[in-house]
Amino acid sequence: MIYFDHQSTTPVDPRVVEAMLPYFSGTYGNPSSHIHAQGVAAGEALDNARLSVASSIGAKPEEVIFTSGATEANNLAIKGFVEANADRGKHIIASAIEHYSVLAPLRSLQSRGFEVTYVGCDKYGMVDPVDVGKALKHDTAMITVQAANPEIGTIQRIQDIALFARKHDVYFHTDAAAASGIVPIDVDVLGVDSLTLSSHNMYGPKGVGALYLRTGNRLSCQIVGGMQESGYRSGTENLPGIVGMAKACDLAKAEASTRIELLKNLQIKLWDWLANNVEYLEFTGHPMYRIPGHVSFWVKFIEGESLLLMLNMKGIMCSSGSACSSNLRGHDEEDLAASHVLTAVGVPAEFCSGSLTVSMGKDNTEDEVDYMISALPSIIERLLAMSPLYADKLKGKDPYSK
Amino acid sequence: MIYFDHQSTTPVDPRVVEAMLPYFSGTYGNPSSHIHAQGVAAGEALDNARLSVASSIGAKPEEVIFTSGATEANNLAIKGFVEANADRGKHIIASAIEHYSVLAPLRSLQSRGFEVTYVGCDKYGMVDPVDVGKALKHDTAMITVQAANPEIGTIQRIQDIALFARKHDVYFHTDAAAASGIVPIDVDVLGVDSLTLSSHNMYGPKGVGALYLRTGNRLSCQIVGGMQESGYRSGTENLPGIVGMAKACDLAKAEASTRIELLKNLQIKLWDWLANNVEYLEFTGHPMYRIPGHVSFWVKFIEGESLLLMLNMKGIMCSSGSACSSNLRGHDEEDLAASHVLTAVGVPAEFCSGSLTVSMGKDNTEDEVDYMISALPSIIERLLAMSPLYADKLKGKDPYSK
Repeated sequence: MIYFDHQSTTPVDPRVVEAMLPYFSGTYGNPSSHIHAQGVAAGEALDNARLSVASSIGAKPEEVIFTSGATEANNLAIKGFVEANADRGKHIIASAIEHYSVLAPLRSLQSRGFEVTYVGCDKYGMVDPVDVGKALKHDTAMITVQAANPEIGTIQRIQDIALFARKHDVYFHTDAAAASGIVPIDVDVLGVDSLTLSSHNMYGPKGVGALYLRTGNRLSCQIVGGMQESGYRSGTENLPGIVGMAKACDLAKAEASTRIELLKNLQIKLWDWLANNVEYLEFTGHPMYRIPGHVSFWVKFIEGESLLLMLNMKGIMCSSGSACSSNLRGHDEEDLAASHVLTAVGVPAEFCSGSLTVSMGKDNTEDEVDYMISALPSIIERLLAMSPLYADKLKGKDPYSK
Repeated sequence: MIYFDHQSTTPVDPRVVEAMLPYFSGTYGNPSSHIHAQGVAAGEALDNARLSVASSIGAKPEEVIFTSGATEANNLAIKGFVEANADRGKHIIASAIEHYSVLAPLRSLQSRGFEVTYVGCDKYGMVDPVDVGKALKHDTAMITVQAANPEIGTIQRIQDIALFARKHDVYFHTDAAAASGIVPIDVDVLGVDSLTLSSHNMYGPKGVGALYLRTGNRLSCQIVGGMQESGYRSGTENLPGIVGMAKACDLAKAEASTRIELLKNLQIKLWDWLANNVEYLEFTGHPMYRIPGHVSFWVKFIEGESLLLMLNMKGIMCSSGSACSSNLRGHDEEDLAASHVLTAVGVPAEFCSGSLTVSMGKDNTEDEVDYMISALPSIIERLLAMSPLYADKLKGKDPYSK
């Protein structure tokens, strides 16, 4: 089986599991139990983990808040900010291609009287920083633009957006879940006020994530109780998970150049083959500013879901954009066909029946890409043969020329 | 080292760790990735885990919502209920000895216009169900009373409180974190609408918990995004953690009678020795209706914290009530001396400088209790010798008779 769905989740690196193991049954104390040896040892492990995560993104340890994952971190960054800063205005700017864990908090704020301007992007999924600047109002409290898009792979010009945010003293959050562990992050280079990291996107365990919060910013705690995490997030800390995330951050930092080189090579190989060999194929996302190892596309006449299923039958696992979106099917009619991301980049919903996201990881090989390349032609041939739209086209009735 | 602080957290049972291991690097898929083999396998594991947790408390699988822990579950049960049921009234009844993860959400609701009646308890920490019944108003929306208290060990008469809740059609939540895995729970016997379970209190991993929600009740999602957990809780599920919690539930159910017998024996041994051998000792909590293996007390003239530190130096780890409370020191002056729980049971704050909670676990032994019994006399003697209050008493000036 070949796993090409690293944007949905990654396998935990065995070195990460090894780092976690002592914290289940050995150093199992509650970090809040300051009074005895087990608690103190747990507290020290928590401090060390915080230092690792912080240093992997150029932050100070006290600027790292551990959460249960990226979704909670985005919720805290967005809802927590406006609740703690009611005087900063009622207007928010976001990109139109944010993840559901950003869009859903924004929608809840809209129902509470906030106005959200969704800034569009070009056909490559790139948000123009100038558009963000133009959207600023006198009462803009927050800008939130993702670092990278999991579905189409585009990496945003966060630094340039940050310039506008800084100039106008507007809080700037970026969801870096899709970039975690693969696109090097430095919070000072990016110039953001807060940043979401996902552990399970970088070979760390599920159930843990972190929010970077620049010193000087305040958030309102969302999960209230025992005042853990400097009062920003209550609940006994998931110490084995946090230690695992820290190890994953250490590894990502140490191996960044090796991973990027491998993934760029695999990406180029697959991209070039697709470009040269698959008719009716349209790439999505930016051809250059994209997540290493990320290739996404759709094929005219072919249903994305059928392509995914047939690839899975051949042992190749990919996705149609964000894994989370699959839970929304049935909740939201418009998600059945093209996602909000594909719509935003101008993929025609009437022509595109789903796209494919191939997100490769650090342990994938050239052989695996070769295997996919060898498997694709017969699959596409078969799907074209099954497609009524393609049959119409062969009869001279082009369904795409209404 | 002897660990007598199982109410703060428990070591993860090695069988639980073993059950989790295949879900880090083997079946590592995202349960929302319905489209490929890894995701499907992860989804099946999630379903099985839900079934285990549900059956351990007599619930249906669809009534179990996985969260990041008990704190989040309590937040969801309380804030989520009032937000989804605005028509059910603005009055809430709670016991005065709830955990911070219940009290803090209640305080946030009070600041949003809700009225909370805190029902007191007797000197044993027992809430009288009739008092709860008397506190009911025409617009009471919710009752929340904990199943057991982590600090003083008292188990509440939840069934009887439920009778009042049912009769008046009021939503009834119970925080069963301190009872998790040790006091057998059946949601139908208890008659509750929702119930919080903690994994790390029952030899499962940290970073996971569950909220039981009876069919027919609605909650507003607190962490919004990808609509996981039937829309009640967004974020990629912590699958290894959830599988671990399920295994911990299975073990707790299978071993319930063995664990309870052992813990009752250890409890009685320590209790009887303390009662017969330590002068100036006052037990806290109910002598009969208490968590098996839980012994709590304070000693006149002696600072609880000094006692804890000296026990730790002898290799015995206990706590002063809830581990969470330690984070509140400095935030809340009144927590420095007696906790809100000790105050509620009438322990005089001016005499009591901290209590001790000995919470034994399934792997503790009689030898360990014997060791504590052998260590205590010299510690108490030394602390009495250091105590200025005790010196006054020896001089005939009883400091407790103001």
